[in-house]
Amino acid sequence: MSETVSFESMHGLMFSVSGPSGVGKGTIIKEIKKIYPDCGHSISVTTRRPRGTEKDGVDYYFRSATEFEKLCIEGEILEFDEYVGNFYGTPATPLLKMTECGRDVLLDLTIAGSMALKKKFSQAVTIFILPPSLEVLENRLVGRGTEDRELVNRRLEKAREEILNANGFDYVVINDELSDTVRKVEAIMIAEKCRYFRHSGIEKKFI
Amino acid sequence: MSETVSFESMHGLMFSVSGPSGVGKGTIIKEIKKIYPDCGHSISVTTRRPRGTEKDGVDYYFRSATEFEKLCIEGEILEFDEYVGNFYGTPATPLLKMTECGRDVLLDLTIAGSMALKKKFSQAVTIFILPPSLEVLENRLVGRGTEDRELVNRRLEKAREEILNANGFDYVVINDELSDTVRKVEAIMIAEKCRYFRHSGIEKKFI
Repeated sequence: MSETVSFESMHGLMFSVSGPSGVGKGTIIKEIKKIYPDCGHSISVTTRRPRGTEKDGVDYYFRSATEFEKLCIEGEILEFDEYVGNFYGTPATPLLKMTECGRDVLLDLTIAGSMALKKKFSQAVTIFILPPSLEVLENRLVGRGTEDRELVNRRLEKAREEILNANGFDYVVINDELSDTVRKVEAIMIAEKCRYFRHSGIEKKFI
Repeated sequence: MSETVSFESMHGLMFSVSGPSGVGKGTIIKEIKKIYPDCGHSISVTTRRPRGTEKDGVDYYFRSATEFEKLCIEGEILEFDEYVGNFYGTPATPLLKMTECGRDVLLDLTIAGSMALKKKFSQAVTIFILPPSLEVLENRLVGRGTEDRELVNRRLEKAREEILNANGFDYVVINDELSDTVRKVEAIMIAEKCRYFRHSGIEKKFI
């Protein structure tokens, strides 16, 4: 008769976490990785040269400016940034390969990056982290003590703009209490694995 | 400036749990209710007369056969069953009222009941519980020791038919290890509350 049916063989899922600067994305992702240490992350493509013992495909994917541009044109780069004359981008294909091996991937992406991820991989899950209020965000940014007032103001202005784009996301979580936020993000990851459409045809295994 | 934004004021959600006889729905719901004792449940409408201290609207909604029929025709009854000449049905409106007061509702429904719930309330969340295999289901049914072999066979035959309808559900959970299943159902409940479409316009509260 029928064999035992499980979700074990399913592909991994891609989860992106976005939100304004200071909202706590990095900490949330760090906490989730403690719970799921096998969760994959993105290795950036960069146009800068390798330093010391840095290895291609481990620390970065090292590519020439021409190659980087080509990857951008091909839609392979989900988001990119420039820093002291070098480009850093998030490539799409390695994420797909990880999920095909059954690994989940958790990404810290800009809002544009999350939208590009969803456009390229419709099954990806996008999570937007909101602060409890703009005052709380301001206090957190000031509390860091690493940025002057003008920069804080610029970040707050950008946060306002970014928050208006939250409606493009699958999920929204207000980061008030960290443990509560982590619990919610973890719940989203568990629940998404149970969505029927990800197991289409599972019922036929019982006949 | 902006006030603190939270999900506190949101409506409750309706969750239905369905699955074949013997799959463990009752136990799962009991465990979830331990975690969320405030979670509401359905009070059935019945055509039988009240017994002893039974109160209308507390133990059952007591209605005449004519009234019950009228409720069915109006689409108010999500599912019903007959037992020793009396009808027992799940009414829709009390569920809506509970969620409007901010209470979540967790329902043990037949498959037809879950489909009717979703049709009436598109925001309801439907969960189908699968056994790890038909053998496991058979063992559980036999293990109960309350049903003869013929009844077990009929239940298994019905389970096969029912499982084929799992594709109409939002979520599917394989009930192998109870604690794992409860964790998944709880995750679904937490995650669904974070879905962006349930907080449409939340981003505007930050401007």
